[in-house]
Amino acid sequence: MSGAAGETRGTPERDITVVEVGPRDGLQDEPRLVKLETKLELIARLGVCGFPAIEATSFVSPKWIPQLADADLLLPRIERRAGVRYPVLVPNSTGLKRALAAGAREIAIFSAASETFNRRNINCSIDASLRRYEPVAAAARQAGLWIRGYISCTVGCPYEGWIEPAAVAAVAARLAALGCDEISLGDTIGVATPNRATAMLRAVAGEVPVERLAIHFHDTYGQALANILACLDLGVRTIDASIAGLGGCPYARGASGNVASEDVIYLLHGLGLTTGIDLDQAALTGQWISDLLDRRNQSRAGRAIVKRRLDTPSP
Amino acid sequence: MSGAAGETRGTPERDITVVEVGPRDGLQDEPRLVKLETKLELIARLGVCGFPAIEATSFVSPKWIPQLADADLLLPRIERRAGVRYPVLVPNSTGLKRALAAGAREIAIFSAASETFNRRNINCSIDASLRRYEPVAAAARQAGLWIRGYISCTVGCPYEGWIEPAAVAAVAARLAALGCDEISLGDTIGVATPNRATAMLRAVAGEVPVERLAIHFHDTYGQALANILACLDLGVRTIDASIAGLGGCPYARGASGNVASEDVIYLLHGLGLTTGIDLDQAALTGQWISDLLDRRNQSRAGRAIVKRRLDTPSP
Repeated sequence: MSGAAGETRGTPERDITVVEVGPRDGLQDEPRLVKLETKLELIARLGVCGFPAIEATSFVSPKWIPQLADADLLLPRIERRAGVRYPVLVPNSTGLKRALAAGAREIAIFSAASETFNRRNINCSIDASLRRYEPVAAAARQAGLWIRGYISCTVGCPYEGWIEPAAVAAVAARLAALGCDEISLGDTIGVATPNRATAMLRAVAGEVPVERLAIHFHDTYGQALANILACLDLGVRTIDASIAGLGGCPYARGASGNVASEDVIYLLHGLGLTTGIDLDQAALTGQWISDLLDRRNQSRAGRAIVKRRLDTPSP
Repeated sequence: MSGAAGETRGTPERDITVVEVGPRDGLQDEPRLVKLETKLELIARLGVCGFPAIEATSFVSPKWIPQLADADLLLPRIERRAGVRYPVLVPNSTGLKRALAAGAREIAIFSAASETFNRRNINCSIDASLRRYEPVAAAARQAGLWIRGYISCTVGCPYEGWIEPAAVAAVAARLAALGCDEISLGDTIGVATPNRATAMLRAVAGEVPVERLAIHFHDTYGQALANILACLDLGVRTIDASIAGLGGCPYARGASGNVASEDVIYLLHGLGLTTGIDLDQAALTGQWISDLLDRRNQSRAGRAIVKRRLDTPSP
C-alpha cells in the first residue's frame, strides 16, 4: 500500500468501498460528447454523495476515446475532497506523463485475461502489454502514485468464451508484481453467474490477498447483484459500480453495462454494511445525469427512490 | 399434494420449477387492454418455451381488473400441454364457480402479511379474508383442484414498513391449513435484500415444508436475483417470474415490477440447475410481447440475448 490516499483504505469509516466509475468507464461509452463543466459537476456531486473513490477520466489517446479528450483540463480542476481517490486510466508512458502533469495521485492500468480480447483491444499479447507497463508502473511508484490494475474478461470473452480462473489469477499476480495496490476484476461482458464469479475470485485470491481485490460486474444479463452477493461471502470489500448504470449501450434492445451504484448501495445497506454514501443523494445524482444526457436511468433502485420521492409530499 | 397436475411437481425432469406469472400478474398491471387472442398466443408461446406452470388469468370481478375480464372465455380456449399447470386467481366463491365453469384445474387464492395492506386491498382483515376462503378452499379441494396460496407484502409494506417474519409464517400456516398445495411468498414492493428475504423464508419454512414454498420477488430495487440466490441456499425450489418483467409500471421513472423470467432462468442455468425451459425461446417470447405491447423489455438477459442473436449472423 502506497500513495497519498492510502490511508483511506480499510478505515473503520465504512465496511465496503464502492468505487464509482461512471465519469470514466461510464461516460467513455456515451455516444454524445459531454461538456467538461458537466463532467466536473458530476464528479463534484458524486463527492457530495460520499463515494470514497471516483474514477475521473482517462489518459488514453484522444483519438481512441474522444469523449475523454479533455482529461488534461479536467483533472486539475477537480476539487479534491479529503480522503477521496480520483484514479485516472493510463495506457502507457505518454499517458502517465500527461496524468502527472495534470496532478494525478492515483492511476489505473489495464490488461485482459483473454489473449484474443487483449489483441483486439490493444493489439498486443497479454505478456507484451504487461511488460510495456513495467516502466510505467515503476515511474508511477517512484512518483508516489497509488496504482489500480484492471483485468477485463475475467469470466467470459466475446471471442474465447469462458475464461479459466487460473488465467485470471496469473494476470493478477503479474499486476501485483508490477506494484498495483488494488486489482479490479471485471466481468466485461456481464456473463458471470455466482458460481463462475466465485470460482474466478477464489483463484485470484490464491495469488493476491482478497483485501487488495475489487470486483467489477456488468449487469448485461441482470446477474451483477447476485454475483456481488456471492463474492461478499468470500471477503471482498471493494466493489466497482457506475452511477445510474452509466456505460454500455443505453438504447432500446441494447445491452446494459456497468452495474448501477444505487442498486449496489441498496443491497449493501440492506445487508447492514456501511458505505459512507448517501443513497438518496446518489439516486438524485443518477437521475440528474440521466436526464441531462437524455438517457434512461439504468438503476432500478435509483428509479424507485426518485419515484418514491416524487410520490411522497415533503413533510 | 392433490389435483390432476400434482405429478408435475418434484419430478426428476427439472431441478427448479419456474412459475410464469406474466399472463395474469403481469398483464393485470398493463394499462392498455390486451386482446384475448394475444393472451392466448402468449400462453401458447410460454408453453412452447417449456414453462411447467403458467398463471393464466384471474376470476376477480371484471370491475376490479378490466384487463382480465375475459377470463371465462380465455381459460377454456387454452390448449393445455401435458404436465403444465395453468392456475387462475380466485378471490371468493363467485370466482371459484366461474373458474370451475371455465374448466380450471388449478386455482390460486391470496392474502397479505400486512393488516393495513390487506384492508386497503380487499377491505377486510387478514383473519376475515382467510375465514372467507375456508368454504372456497373446501369446495376447490372437493372438486379435485390444486391450490396455490399467495401471501403479499411478506418483507415490506407500503403502509406498515418492514413486516415481521413471524407474521408471514402465521399466514402461511393458515393457508396450509386451508389445503394449499403450494404457498408463494411475495415481496410485493420489492424492498427485500437477501438477509430479510432469508429471515422471512426461514420463519415460514418452520411452519410449512420448504418443498411447498415458492418465492415471488419484485425487481423494484434490482434485488430480486440476489434474493433468489440466497433463498436457493435454503432449499426453495419453486420461483415465480414474469416474462420480460411484465407487470409493475413500465414507464419512464416508473418502478420495475416482477422479476423477469429470462433473468431468473439465466441465473439458474448458469448455476447448473435445470428448468426444462429454452432460454432463447423465452427471450424471443419476451421481446415479442414487449414489442406487441409497445413496452420496454424489462429483462436484461432477454435484451442481451435478443441483441446477440441480431448481431450474430445465422450459421
